[in-house]
Amino acid sequence: MKKLINDVETAMTESLAGFCTAHSDIVRMGELAPFVQRRNLKPGKVALLSGGGSGHEPLHTGFVGHGMLDAACPGQVFTSPTPDLILAAAEAADTGGGVLFIVKNYEGDVMNFDMAREMSEKSIATVITDDDVAVETSTFSTGRRGVAGTLIVEKILGAAAEGRGLAALKTLGDRVNAATRSIGIALTSCTVPAAGKPTFDIAEDEMEVGVGIHGEPGRRRVKLKPAAGIAAEMVNAITADLGERARGEVILLINGFGATPLSELYLMYDGVRRLLEAVGMIVTRSLVGNFVTSLDMAGCSATVSILDEEMKRLWDAPVHTAALRWGM
Amino acid sequence: MKKLINDVETAMTESLAGFCTAHSDIVRMGELAPFVQRRNLKPGKVALLSGGGSGHEPLHTGFVGHGMLDAACPGQVFTSPTPDLILAAAEAADTGGGVLFIVKNYEGDVMNFDMAREMSEKSIATVITDDDVAVETSTFSTGRRGVAGTLIVEKILGAAAEGRGLAALKTLGDRVNAATRSIGIALTSCTVPAAGKPTFDIAEDEMEVGVGIHGEPGRRRVKLKPAAGIAAEMVNAITADLGERARGEVILLINGFGATPLSELYLMYDGVRRLLEAVGMIVTRSLVGNFVTSLDMAGCSATVSILDEEMKRLWDAPVHTAALRWGM
Repeated sequence: MKKLINDVETAMTESLAGFCTAHSDIVRMGELAPFVQRRNLKPGKVALLSGGGSGHEPLHTGFVGHGMLDAACPGQVFTSPTPDLILAAAEAADTGGGVLFIVKNYEGDVMNFDMAREMSEKSIATVITDDDVAVETSTFSTGRRGVAGTLIVEKILGAAAEGRGLAALKTLGDRVNAATRSIGIALTSCTVPAAGKPTFDIAEDEMEVGVGIHGEPGRRRVKLKPAAGIAAEMVNAITADLGERARGEVILLINGFGATPLSELYLMYDGVRRLLEAVGMIVTRSLVGNFVTSLDMAGCSATVSILDEEMKRLWDAPVHTAALRWGM
Repeated sequence: MKKLINDVETAMTESLAGFCTAHSDIVRMGELAPFVQRRNLKPGKVALLSGGGSGHEPLHTGFVGHGMLDAACPGQVFTSPTPDLILAAAEAADTGGGVLFIVKNYEGDVMNFDMAREMSEKSIATVITDDDVAVETSTFSTGRRGVAGTLIVEKILGAAAEGRGLAALKTLGDRVNAATRSIGIALTSCTVPAAGKPTFDIAEDEMEVGVGIHGEPGRRRVKLKPAAGIAAEMVNAITADLGERARGEVILLINGFGATPLSELYLMYDGVRRLLEAVGMIVTRSLVGNFVTSLDMAGCSATVSILDEEMKRLWDAPVHTAALRWGM
């Protein structure tokens, strides 16, 4: 295993310290526990809080800031944050408007965020993301997994939270999640530092279709295809699942899993976009890069989110975080 | 070789097409040749033009836009752009203020940009970047190599170009380059698509200290160290080279080579920053991410740029490109 770390035990803490120092204009470390919070909280605003296992950076810490999250709770690599940590972050982030949890649909995450909610006396609601069309249940989830579409839910809710109450945000979050579909493919495994070896074996001529963001198995293992074939597979999976909703304006997010060059992601964007437009969707918002990663896994995912006027306006609203920044 | 491509011959063109479509609000493809230019050129402004082999994305195409480059000429992977392409881009980008070339110090790049300048009737000056302290001459360079510090030169010149003439920009560019030092380390090789196999072999317990951004050899091959040891090696190389200039406020850029997780880059940032501050430098500007990559190489570089008030103001000025965006 080749990693730029000192010790498996301290790697997450050292990395978080670096992150908070590098972006001290936007975030700061929690006072009583190692979560990341927005430097300037807005009194009375609903606090948006997300979290989950580390190893998916910049998700979620990189999305803390104006127009997106108020706090993020990172667990150890691919391990849910503890209820105590979530509770501490919720207490710190709440400024009187209540707290909205945005949780990817994995059993550990859902359970720990639920426990934190029960332990808290704050007003808390939860939006669960489950945008991955690959499989109906998986290693760590009952029901579909939450993957890169979580970024879209966090961005749109983040913009809306600047002026709406908890119940309205919960409704909007569920609506955005329901409009969003993802599917990923992996060319290589990732290596969890504590394990010291690749999570799975894959041959030099194979890819995993429908892979999860922890390297979980997807739909099937097949021979590596040219990019156009992979794009077709992704678009078919997403449009089949969307059914009649697969039309009109969409956001297209091509997300790298961590070890895939940006040039390949733009090439995939080109292929996926052409195919979406061939079946009647219009890509009017785009995002290409490494946003929801799986440590050092090579591969990528495509996420499509069906837009309406409200979602479009909220997507375009200013955002100022470490990893996503526009309009200000 | 596992790449998300259709064909080695067409990969660059397809990727560029995706890039220009995804960022059509900022850039467009050249009309007569495959270069990238800023969508809205500003009449009378000195045009900043950079370029070089592909495989380092987002450098340089991702830095085209307001407050940075006016055009970028990508060659094939790790291959200089042709003089014809550079000439076409210079002709297209010039709006009457002349053209400043920003060229990384590699023999092929320097020669081809020089040829384009001789072929053109425009007013053209050149800034050469050679920030890599690792080696005095290398596989592709006579003199030091230009690496991630090029980003800093491009950002600062980009801000200055909004209001200065060609001669003043040339002087400023040389000054910023002279204030900037970098060194990189590699944990793995990169794989050039046309070659189909890793550029170099490296054992599972080794790293290359002083590696170039094309996988060229550096100072020496050593056993992999903990992050703190690597940080010390980097800081020593940079401060030894800076000598008495190693003090005061600096920009610290921790740049990933493409396959290194963001969490490891922040951990390296934490280590390098502590060591810089221990020897009297003050990190007041920071940038962490994959900016000047080497395809799918694992590893990173550290760049330190000694700041003065003018450089600081220009670094902070608004920039709006695909890969770097702040202040607007």
